Amino acid sequence: MKTITEVQNPLQVFAQIESQVRSYIRNFPVVFAKASGHTLWDNAGRAYIDFFAGAGALNYGHNNPVIKEKLIEYLRQDGVTHSLDMATEAKEALLKKFNEVILAPRGMSYKIMFPGPTGTNSVEAALKLARKTTGRHTVLSFTNGFHGMTIGSLSVTGNRMKREGAGMPLTHALSLPYDNYMGADVDTAAYIERLLEDGGSGLSLPAAMILETVQGEGGINVASSEWLRRIEAICRKHGILLIVDDVQAGCGRTGSFFSFEQAGITPDIVCLSKSIGGYGLPLALTLIRPDLDKWQPGEHNGTFRGNNLAFIAALEALNYWKDDAFRQSIGKKGQMARARLEKIAADYPYLGAEVRGKGLMLGLAVQEDELAEKICACAFERGLIMETSGARSEVIKLLPPLTISDEALNRGLDILEESVKICQRKERGL
Amino acid sequence: MKTITEVQNPLQVFAQIESQVRSYIRNFPVVFAKASGHTLWDNAGRAYIDFFAGAGALNYGHNNPVIKEKLIEYLRQDGVTHSLDMATEAKEALLKKFNEVILAPRGMSYKIMFPGPTGTNSVEAALKLARKTTGRHTVLSFTNGFHGMTIGSLSVTGNRMKREGAGMPLTHALSLPYDNYMGADVDTAAYIERLLEDGGSGLSLPAAMILETVQGEGGINVASSEWLRRIEAICRKHGILLIVDDVQAGCGRTGSFFSFEQAGITPDIVCLSKSIGGYGLPLALTLIRPDLDKWQPGEHNGTFRGNNLAFIAALEALNYWKDDAFRQSIGKKGQMARARLEKIAADYPYLGAEVRGKGLMLGLAVQEDELAEKICACAFERGLIMETSGARSEVIKLLPPLTISDEALNRGLDILEESVKICQRKERGL
Amino acid sequence: MKTITEVQNPLQVFAQIESQVRSYIRNFPVVFAKASGHTLWDNAGRAYIDFFAGAGALNYGHNNPVIKEKLIEYLRQDGVTHSLDMATEAKEALLKKFNEVILAPRGMSYKIMFPGPTGTNSVEAALKLARKTTGRHTVLSFTNGFHGMTIGSLSVTGNRMKREGAGMPLTHALSLPYDNYMGADVDTAAYIERLLEDGGSGLSLPAAMILETVQGEGGINVASSEWLRRIEAICRKHGILLIVDDVQAGCGRTGSFFSFEQAGITPDIVCLSKSIGGYGLPLALTLIRPDLDKWQPGEHNGTFRGNNLAFIAALEALNYWKDDAFRQSIGKKGQMARARLEKIAADYPYLGAEVRGKGLMLGLAVQEDELAEKICACAFERGLIMETSGARSEVIKLLPPLTISDEALNRGLDILEESVKICQRKERGL
Amino acid sequence: MKTITEVQNPLQVFAQIESQVRSYIRNFPVVFAKASGHTLWDNAGRAYIDFFAGAGALNYGHNNPVIKEKLIEYLRQDGVTHSLDMATEAKEALLKKFNEVILAPRGMSYKIMFPGPTGTNSVEAALKLARKTTGRHTVLSFTNGFHGMTIGSLSVTGNRMKREGAGMPLTHALSLPYDNYMGADVDTAAYIERLLEDGGSGLSLPAAMILETVQGEGGINVASSEWLRRIEAICRKHGILLIVDDVQAGCGRTGSFFSFEQAGITPDIVCLSKSIGGYGLPLALTLIRPDLDKWQPGEHNGTFRGNNLAFIAALEALNYWKDDAFRQSIGKKGQMARARLEKIAADYPYLGAEVRGKGLMLGLAVQEDELAEKICACAFERGLIMETSGARSEVIKLLPPLTISDEALNRGLDILEESVKICQRKERGL
Repeated sequence: MKTITEVQNPLQVFAQIESQVRSYIRNFPVVFAKASGHTLWDNAGRAYIDFFAGAGALNYGHNNPVIKEKLIEYLRQDGVTHSLDMATEAKEALLKKFNEVILAPRGMSYKIMFPGPTGTNSVEAALKLARKTTGRHTVLSFTNGFHGMTIGSLSVTGNRMKREGAGMPLTHALSLPYDNYMGADVDTAAYIERLLEDGGSGLSLPAAMILETVQGEGGINVASSEWLRRIEAICRKHGILLIVDDVQAGCGRTGSFFSFEQAGITPDIVCLSKSIGGYGLPLALTLIRPDLDKWQPGEHNGTFRGNNLAFIAALEALNYWKDDAFRQSIGKKGQMARARLEKIAADYPYLGAEVRGKGLMLGLAVQEDELAEKICACAFERGLIMETSGARSEVIKLLPPLTISDEALNRGLDILEESVKICQRKERGL
Repeated sequence: MKTITEVQNPLQVFAQIESQVRSYIRNFPVVFAKASGHTLWDNAGRAYIDFFAGAGALNYGHNNPVIKEKLIEYLRQDGVTHSLDMATEAKEALLKKFNEVILAPRGMSYKIMFPGPTGTNSVEAALKLARKTTGRHTVLSFTNGFHGMTIGSLSVTGNRMKREGAGMPLTHALSLPYDNYMGADVDTAAYIERLLEDGGSGLSLPAAMILETVQGEGGINVASSEWLRRIEAICRKHGILLIVDDVQAGCGRTGSFFSFEQAGITPDIVCLSKSIGGYGLPLALTLIRPDLDKWQPGEHNGTFRGNNLAFIAALEALNYWKDDAFRQSIGKKGQMARARLEKIAADYPYLGAEVRGKGLMLGLAVQEDELAEKICACAFERGLIMETSGARSEVIKLLPPLTISDEALNRGLDILEESVKICQRKERGL
Repeated sequence: MKTITEVQNPLQVFAQIESQVRSYIRNFPVVFAKASGHTLWDNAGRAYIDFFAGAGALNYGHNNPVIKEKLIEYLRQDGVTHSLDMATEAKEALLKKFNEVILAPRGMSYKIMFPGPTGTNSVEAALKLARKTTGRHTVLSFTNGFHGMTIGSLSVTGNRMKREGAGMPLTHALSLPYDNYMGADVDTAAYIERLLEDGGSGLSLPAAMILETVQGEGGINVASSEWLRRIEAICRKHGILLIVDDVQAGCGRTGSFFSFEQAGITPDIVCLSKSIGGYGLPLALTLIRPDLDKWQPGEHNGTFRGNNLAFIAALEALNYWKDDAFRQSIGKKGQMARARLEKIAADYPYLGAEVRGKGLMLGLAVQEDELAEKICACAFERGLIMETSGARSEVIKLLPPLTISDEALNRGLDILEESVKICQRKERGL
Repeated sequence: MKTITEVQNPLQVFAQIESQVRSYIRNFPVVFAKASGHTLWDNAGRAYIDFFAGAGALNYGHNNPVIKEKLIEYLRQDGVTHSLDMATEAKEALLKKFNEVILAPRGMSYKIMFPGPTGTNSVEAALKLARKTTGRHTVLSFTNGFHGMTIGSLSVTGNRMKREGAGMPLTHALSLPYDNYMGADVDTAAYIERLLEDGGSGLSLPAAMILETVQGEGGINVASSEWLRRIEAICRKHGILLIVDDVQAGCGRTGSFFSFEQAGITPDIVCLSKSIGGYGLPLALTLIRPDLDKWQPGEHNGTFRGNNLAFIAALEALNYWKDDAFRQSIGKKGQMARARLEKIAADYPYLGAEVRGKGLMLGLAVQEDELAEKICACAFERGLIMETSGARSEVIKLLPPLTISDEALNRGLDILEESVKICQRKERGL
């Protein structure tokens, strides 16, 4: 191995030492040094508008200054940093405030579980509890759903490449067609109901269904409120638990704190992570209908359930939800961004584009293979960080921080439009 | 639901809002407020010596002051906090330093994977890679092994109560007898070899074996160096990958940075977490033999792979390993603690005690059911935090910070001895 | 236990000694003593026309006299009865004749496997070989498919009650919608194709699809030739093996020797049993595309693969297929029976009936729950043996021997019509 | 494909048309034509003494003349041949007689199930019922156990080559060490008990254990009566069902009708097949402790449950068990054969032989790889049919018909001895 000091390529340390599995570094091949709000800076001092926001973990922006001060203060005073699931003042404060600001005003009485600090931990805990309390094994998931990379969560994730990473069969889960999967004319909820009611369908009564109301990784697919209510009704009728994975779509991303509020449904279990940690710090919650909270003490555990810096950051971030202003601002920005995307779709018919999404979780689905990736690469060169999603990476995904200014949002959209224009020229060989 | 403001019981917020799954809070029923080095303080100002150390996540003590300053400095300068798996200066520095301080001096050339910030993430990644690269499904694990709570890791974990939490069958794993499981006279490695060589044993060629060299949760069971070398030889002979889960036993806990150094074995994959994060911050690594690094980019991923505060803390903590002093100090303290445990075992025959462990990962196994728990409860009342382990909670487990002073270590052991004495009186009805 | 000699109830021996699992005896509660052609006699000498024909195992009638003489002759001369998979003259003759009469004239070059003497053995062998040769695990099956009761076959069977008999999860199989399952407007082949082509569908590339061209147990559901060709094309495109389970629909039941001849498809593997044994003797074959015949010697085996009496009977039965007369007679009888069923459906609108089927595999699906069973019970009292099928037992199933005379066929249909009339009166409370 | 009429090689029809999976035909490469008692004749008129007896399916000899007459008579009178699970006079007679001759005299009150006509059907039914009634999934099996080739039975079979034929993971089963598997000094029952009692062993409470008291395919391994009683006691203590697979060892093979009678244990479920059909005709029974008989009607079924020719043959064969003479004759012949085997082992030390077995289920285990197969091949050339067993085919297996004359038994043993001698010369290069 070469001595590390002779490195030329700015990413050579990573190429030499880090596993092949590294991914986003390939799309954004610079070394980042600083971050604030909607901006990242690389180590050459170049600024980037961030429309990726930590894949939805940075709804309140990078290094939110108010939260930062709370973190420094907590560190300074030697507040407990790591506490497993022992009681700390920081945790107590978070439990109380989450109840007061989020649950109680919505008439919710969920029990809160700290399943470990990642989204997949939250999903694994939800699946375990659903199976344990119902005594059934199968969990129904949906085409193009994404729930995490550990074996339990991966079993309910649709992506074939990621599933093959398991190296073993993924069982006790069944993927069913999401809303609109078979086109607008086919009612997938009716198919699901038929499978459950027909004693010859080959489907046994499942423990739960797990779904995202807007599929982020799957291509910014939005389930209609009506479909969600149909699914909830089917679950109720058959005694199936409904799990909403709000890891990416929750914490305000689609306009309301929970993504499912608009549809008026009440999941039995809710998975939260990503932006719940306020500052991009690892944290996850699993919200449990109280009568389902049948865990034995310690039956699920984990070393980093007590990440108190994240508790402090989460506590502060909840202030955004004390009144309605933040929610309204997301709505306005979402409409503005959507209008611009619609215009881009209309102005550049070569894209064959469809605008998708809700709130500030938006997508521009394009026809041609690899085109979305080319546009994002072009945008990155112009100072905009954006990712693609969908099974064929066919969707340009927009997840700006919810705190982004109108001006920066527009500037980012300008870069997107410019990139669309440049790629058009390249398509035409100009 | 009562209004939260009427709380009387100091833990009432937790009882009302947190899930039943909470566990350690039941053994240490106070609200902690501050922490430093080997000491925790509750919100009434009472101090506790910590022989639990975040279940091994706080080898460098609580809120280690040197690391703390680095964290505050990094926050102050708006260093990138959350970066997924993009390149940051903090990550680059950590990769270089881990290579320079840990890998290179030991002649190791592992590729480093950031599998997500928890131990179970690291194990899941290891299992996936082992299955994927060998094309085989079964992973052999060991009686009383503990590897995590997500389905992949839980499948290789021995504990029945925790396994039942899955609510579904755990497959593609097989638990075999650990060293000494069938008594000193039976060579469990020979049995394992027979199973592999006999075409009628019912065992198919496995992808991997996963083991802890010292089983922490399983009862501080130490595998002999000879047995470890036998297992490694069996793996080599049959093309089975050897995964060492060093999440709890690594980072100096047993005396050397890796727990397996003394045995002279070279695992194909190593799982690290807990104290690798330096300050109790969520972080995990998976070390991979370079030719096994066959991941597709992004084939395993996760939102919190880029926890830069943990990178900064980990970077600083590596300084403990720049020379041999820290290793030697662990050895000395371990010997001292073990000597005192031996004396306690000898002085209190009612315990029927056996001293177990290595380095500062020590255990006092007692005969009677529930006795270990009683002694720990008694110690807590006297200001010492200790946990039990083993399938019947029959082992008093000692995991003090490796940075603990001799004086505090002795003070803690005094409390332990006093608690043993008090419980003896209670046993006798005095 | 009472002494058996005190039996009063004619079925008391069975009630006392046989397991609860017994089934048809409950619908036809007499003790049968003799059988010939399309007639069964009970031990009181009462005759019954048999429209059940051993669930399709007696296509050539009970105790076919020509075959009977061959069996007696073989027994008399001490021909080998039981031969495992050693070579016998009887087996050699069968192999040659099956090749000459069935395979060669159809341009087929299947290798013939003797997987054990039952349909489920044939299906298990087919599934094993499909998985083994493709290196993939999942087998796609279809709603309301029926393939057998051993765990491999049960995994691809749709019936929920029967699946629950497994007492364990049935994995590595996925049930997809059969032709027309989602109504006439939804193209289920298109859905299946989408699942295979969409990298986010959650479906991994399967080893095989297994289907019946007419679902016997599932409710006499007929797949259209077009749909079968679509399915075959999808299989070819993706390298998926196509297994046709012709255990019930084969051996002439639908009008041609193989049920799939009309559709013009060429399965990779074909499962035969039931009437292949000629005389109701246990026998099954698995036909294998020659290049897929990758078995190790003895990799699948079984004690009763060499049931030579069945070989002798099968050999004789093949004479029915030497020219086209038998095929034509099935077609004519099938048309006649179908016409009468259509008339019954029209004349008795209370049934809400739909006529289903092909050849002499016919069904009358009725609306009301339990009505089909009532009609069959009524028919039995009048000397006609018929069973129901479908997940709700909603289909009256007609499987007369293919050798039945027109006169007896009409007589049976008369009894059916009379039973329909009587049940109508009962429905109306008359 | 060549025209079949041009065949030269006596086995060419098989080579051309039959699947590669054919097996015994390779060891005994002649076409058999006739059989009687302990003798088989090939189509060239050559006679062979049969020490294989249909792998244990022909305990009463080939084409037993008394049974043969009953079969011909039944055929002549058009007795029902195929009856599914409807009542027939033949079935009624068998149920009564099995109860009177076998169950009642032994104080047994098992319910009798007809699970389909093969041993693997019986095992599948037993496993399903055990899982269904206990609500647990795992079944414990034993190293070198053999239970059948369908997926349920294969999951509890030890042989690696056969397991790999499944092409998919075999789950919900765990293979544990049989008696003596770890040598005479290690008590495998104690290990099994430890696994069940240690909450950290990784073993969940199983539904059942399944075992053969003498492992036929696995190498004629005999479990001691003491070990069997230990296993039964462990099962009782933990509420685990004990299934004895007496498919090969039952029906008198080891000296008593059931192989487990001598040990004095009472299985919860017993699997019978092979010789229960009397004449080598396909038949299997599953005997069920009455309170476990919780099947729904038809929850397990199969087309060939009503093989009435086999009922007639089985009925007649039960006459062998009406008094003690047959049992005694097996004992005497067994002792004689064992004595001769012991002498061969002593006289030919080059074999490194160990004599194994019980009753007329005997084995001569030899050291060198492929030696057993060479000896059997040599014996076949001299007119003796014998097979090998064990994972390495290291055991010469003797399963003569129980009805064999002393003279023929000795003649067969003479041929064996001669073959041992000849192979010795070949070993020495003479």
